[in-house]
Amino acid sequence: MAAERINESTRGVYVISPTPFGEDGSLDLASTDRLADFYLDKGVTGFTILGILGEATKLTPDESRLFLHRYLKRIGGAKPVIVGASNPGTDNLVRFSQGAMEAGAAGVMVAPIPGLRTDDQVYAYFETVLSRLEGIPVCYQDYPQTTGVWTSVAVLHRLIDAFPNLVMLKHEESPGLTKITKLRERSDKGEGRRISILVGNGGLHLPQELRRGVDGAMTGFAYPEMLVEVCRRFFDGDKEGAEDVFDRYLPILRHEQQLGFGFAVRKEILRRRGAIATAHVRHPGPKLNPRDIQELDELMARLDTKLKD
Amino acid sequence: MAAERINESTRGVYVISPTPFGEDGSLDLASTDRLADFYLDKGVTGFTILGILGEATKLTPDESRLFLHRYLKRIGGAKPVIVGASNPGTDNLVRFSQGAMEAGAAGVMVAPIPGLRTDDQVYAYFETVLSRLEGIPVCYQDYPQTTGVWTSVAVLHRLIDAFPNLVMLKHEESPGLTKITKLRERSDKGEGRRISILVGNGGLHLPQELRRGVDGAMTGFAYPEMLVEVCRRFFDGDKEGAEDVFDRYLPILRHEQQLGFGFAVRKEILRRRGAIATAHVRHPGPKLNPRDIQELDELMARLDTKLKD
Amino acid sequence: MAAERINESTRGVYVISPTPFGEDGSLDLASTDRLADFYLDKGVTGFTILGILGEATKLTPDESRLFLHRYLKRIGGAKPVIVGASNPGTDNLVRFSQGAMEAGAAGVMVAPIPGLRTDDQVYAYFETVLSRLEGIPVCYQDYPQTTGVWTSVAVLHRLIDAFPNLVMLKHEESPGLTKITKLRERSDKGEGRRISILVGNGGLHLPQELRRGVDGAMTGFAYPEMLVEVCRRFFDGDKEGAEDVFDRYLPILRHEQQLGFGFAVRKEILRRRGAIATAHVRHPGPKLNPRDIQELDELMARLDTKLKD
Amino acid sequence: MAAERINESTRGVYVISPTPFGEDGSLDLASTDRLADFYLDKGVTGFTILGILGEATKLTPDESRLFLHRYLKRIGGAKPVIVGASNPGTDNLVRFSQGAMEAGAAGVMVAPIPGLRTDDQVYAYFETVLSRLEGIPVCYQDYPQTTGVWTSVAVLHRLIDAFPNLVMLKHEESPGLTKITKLRERSDKGEGRRISILVGNGGLHLPQELRRGVDGAMTGFAYPEMLVEVCRRFFDGDKEGAEDVFDRYLPILRHEQQLGFGFAVRKEILRRRGAIATAHVRHPGPKLNPRDIQELDELMARLDTKLKD
Repeated sequence: MAAERINESTRGVYVISPTPFGEDGSLDLASTDRLADFYLDKGVTGFTILGILGEATKLTPDESRLFLHRYLKRIGGAKPVIVGASNPGTDNLVRFSQGAMEAGAAGVMVAPIPGLRTDDQVYAYFETVLSRLEGIPVCYQDYPQTTGVWTSVAVLHRLIDAFPNLVMLKHEESPGLTKITKLRERSDKGEGRRISILVGNGGLHLPQELRRGVDGAMTGFAYPEMLVEVCRRFFDGDKEGAEDVFDRYLPILRHEQQLGFGFAVRKEILRRRGAIATAHVRHPGPKLNPRDIQELDELMARLDTKLKD
Repeated sequence: MAAERINESTRGVYVISPTPFGEDGSLDLASTDRLADFYLDKGVTGFTILGILGEATKLTPDESRLFLHRYLKRIGGAKPVIVGASNPGTDNLVRFSQGAMEAGAAGVMVAPIPGLRTDDQVYAYFETVLSRLEGIPVCYQDYPQTTGVWTSVAVLHRLIDAFPNLVMLKHEESPGLTKITKLRERSDKGEGRRISILVGNGGLHLPQELRRGVDGAMTGFAYPEMLVEVCRRFFDGDKEGAEDVFDRYLPILRHEQQLGFGFAVRKEILRRRGAIATAHVRHPGPKLNPRDIQELDELMARLDTKLKD
Repeated sequence: MAAERINESTRGVYVISPTPFGEDGSLDLASTDRLADFYLDKGVTGFTILGILGEATKLTPDESRLFLHRYLKRIGGAKPVIVGASNPGTDNLVRFSQGAMEAGAAGVMVAPIPGLRTDDQVYAYFETVLSRLEGIPVCYQDYPQTTGVWTSVAVLHRLIDAFPNLVMLKHEESPGLTKITKLRERSDKGEGRRISILVGNGGLHLPQELRRGVDGAMTGFAYPEMLVEVCRRFFDGDKEGAEDVFDRYLPILRHEQQLGFGFAVRKEILRRRGAIATAHVRHPGPKLNPRDIQELDELMARLDTKLKD
Repeated sequence: MAAERINESTRGVYVISPTPFGEDGSLDLASTDRLADFYLDKGVTGFTILGILGEATKLTPDESRLFLHRYLKRIGGAKPVIVGASNPGTDNLVRFSQGAMEAGAAGVMVAPIPGLRTDDQVYAYFETVLSRLEGIPVCYQDYPQTTGVWTSVAVLHRLIDAFPNLVMLKHEESPGLTKITKLRERSDKGEGRRISILVGNGGLHLPQELRRGVDGAMTGFAYPEMLVEVCRRFFDGDKEGAEDVFDRYLPILRHEQQLGFGFAVRKEILRRRGAIATAHVRHPGPKLNPRDIQELDELMARLDTKLKD
């Protein structure tokens, strides 16, 4: 039942999925099915679950397992599912990753733990993690705005050279356009392995990032059909057409992309679109107030108008 | 020759001006005149000089004075000029502010010094600064992404109540939409003085911020005519029309808005538009490489096309 | 079998206990018993387990429960045991706290989650946590060097006034001597409830902190008998005698007090003293190299010499 | 009149000097002379002025020059004087450094600017700075607790290999003992140039740092005669005797070593010792309250008693 595993050539749109809850905060398994169907219907290439947007650190281990299995069962091997495995303890990280792979995951995503400073510290942490995850395809989540850890291009090159199971970079350092170019220049010159790069940050710079050589997006933008269409057009050679599609959604994308707060916006849009039953975020987490709701009404109405043009 | 001073009712677009340099890094006074003219021509309401974009900390005190006087002379009192006065030492801050006001500035802008943590620490710092700047209209620069200092709504309320010379907030905390609403709710209820709020962050959320009650923008976006037109339409009651104008520029605005890096993009656009002779940024500072230049070509070409539609 | 719960009058030395592991990293329950006995033998007033030193975030939930029950069983109600309950999710925090109290804990310790900035944000987080922990005595861990969250005296006063279950402050902001004085001045004037204050940071400033009004120490210093003796002398009125004892241990205390690294030093000293079988720290964590070991030999030898004088 | 310049073999105690002010905050030149004499009398090897303790960023450029010249004149070439030259702008940094050298300085000290993250970013910054300071001996101030910039051993090795004018490291990363060992191991193996290492952090770990191979201390501890005596004994082969001297001062040293706050303690002790006329610190800066003063009385009295034993 397991889909193909992720690898260096993985391309497309991997949607970051939230975890749906009921109004009382309990795990909502019916919405889990609905959400998976919603994304499949929008044409995504794959899924990433139990990441930051998935509120993974607020679930119990039992809830994580339950959610993971439900998701994988619903997808039924039709598409790859990457599972967030970041953990303050490496033993727990490895154990959870192995369990996820046995359950049918296509790979795991790991971010550096907070507190790593120098190049050698970041390298040493991943040296241990990637060694212990031997045989499991790993996506490196490079998100310094949240982790406080800055991963240099040099460290990525060293890790790419040393660990064949590092197959993907979730790129969301910002600003980070030049980082993409540097990574691609090296593999283009044949000086190192080319790995898959999918971009995060809500896709805020997706057209520019595609032009610089990324393979797609991995983000939770609540209109994933836009990301799918942008990538489709771009890889079909229609760069300007891809950007035209993107630009129409940009106003709401940049609104949803507000760090922390945007999280609640995203769940509310998914609720309005019928993908989940409630927009509940577990405590601690952002909440929309009436003024925020009104603002979202206005932005969604403007998008509807544009899409009808 | 001095224009009116800023006050609680100040409204419109205050453009944040860079400091133009020659290729050799020396102060370019001819471009200073040209830049001031360019902004006047685009219809800005006022100016802010010697801020972060103005590379103030990389000038010598003599250069700061020279630039300030040249700018004020060129504007000739036609429009208000706010002068950045943040300084690690309060004596220097006060002395420089007094000099700027004597030279004809309309007010000064001050950000909290790095290292302030709690509400009381932020308040205590500004208590001293605002006391010592008595009689000088002050704009509070609230930019935690750069200063690392988070100013609560509660602290702003306390300062507004205690210091009549605090007349303006440069709002650029992000996310920060709710902060605007909270500030306006209090003055709307008559529970405190209403001060001017101009938004920064390149204007990334300007339409939403205007709807929440701000008085305009204070930012260095290299197409200030857009900001002017958005504000004009908005204050004329055409909210949707304002947002339509905004949306056309949003792709390049969000590109220019990359923290740190965007700085070099901005100077390069101003150079291309004939406002300054070179895009030189003093060391340490960002620099565009050929790939960045090509990307900017593409984005500017797309904007041109849209503006012709 | 449960000891008395902690309350506003709690005084003495609460030792922060590490979690002992075998060489293979597995939980070492035999050493758990030995460690508890060691501390009892040194005369501590109480215990704090599953904190940062306890590597709580690197245990599985099952290991946490197992360790907690083993510890409580060994102590057998002879002394109070506080249990670290900090958690990224509030539901998990509350559930775990309730379980710990049912198992016989004397209270729980909670630190603010990373990312809280302003006074109101810190207050709001604890407002929820303390409300949901109603009826459970809570120790507030105030350790900004690790959490990045700075709790003002004003916030503590508000929380003390609103939540009777906030009975203790683990004070380890540094520098933080004035904070103690401000907290005590208010309750001395009768303007607010007096709560227990125990100091952390290895006890680096313990004599000065006692003179400013704290009730003792809560720290993992590997010679807890010194903390016990210092507090005994101090509360017996012999302030200078207390400080004399302290000063003899200060060289090794300040060595052990190195943030992060000191953690490994502490476990190694405890191993040498026969309290635990191995000094193993789970990954990621600090490790002593041969040069570090030699240095510790020298410092421990110097302490032995001094104690013989 | 200039003393010898610093170089890779520089050894001893370089005292970090504060800048003395009058009660009204003005530069106190008489105290400047007195302070220089005080330090000479205590046997220091050299001086460092206009650093963080020197409140350099709160002086006007004219005050900096005036103070620098007065200091150099008073020392009269008897001892080397290093001048702090860190600056947000590299042009200003270079210009000031050249002026200081012309005035008779023995070298300059430069810290990385805030905001540098990866190894390559730190290297690139110093590559430019050290190139532009060619011919001027430079001390690298490695103080991440204040700058937020973490310099790896790998970066230091690269800089040592590439820039002969990098002759000294002011080591104050904390914890940082292993960093010293790694730097020394490389030069001991003949794999790179050996540079001078002087330690900061008030000398908190000086005996251990000397044993690991540093050449002395560069710090503002208000009893520099202790640092001098510790180094003298250590380099005479009496390691234990050196540490005995150190331990007697450790209680007050660790009190003075409180980040930020200790600054005011230090100036107050220097005032009491007759080295400066007032303990005034310019705004913004720490201030001692009556309770702090009383605490210092107690600690100084205890030191006096110990020294008489």
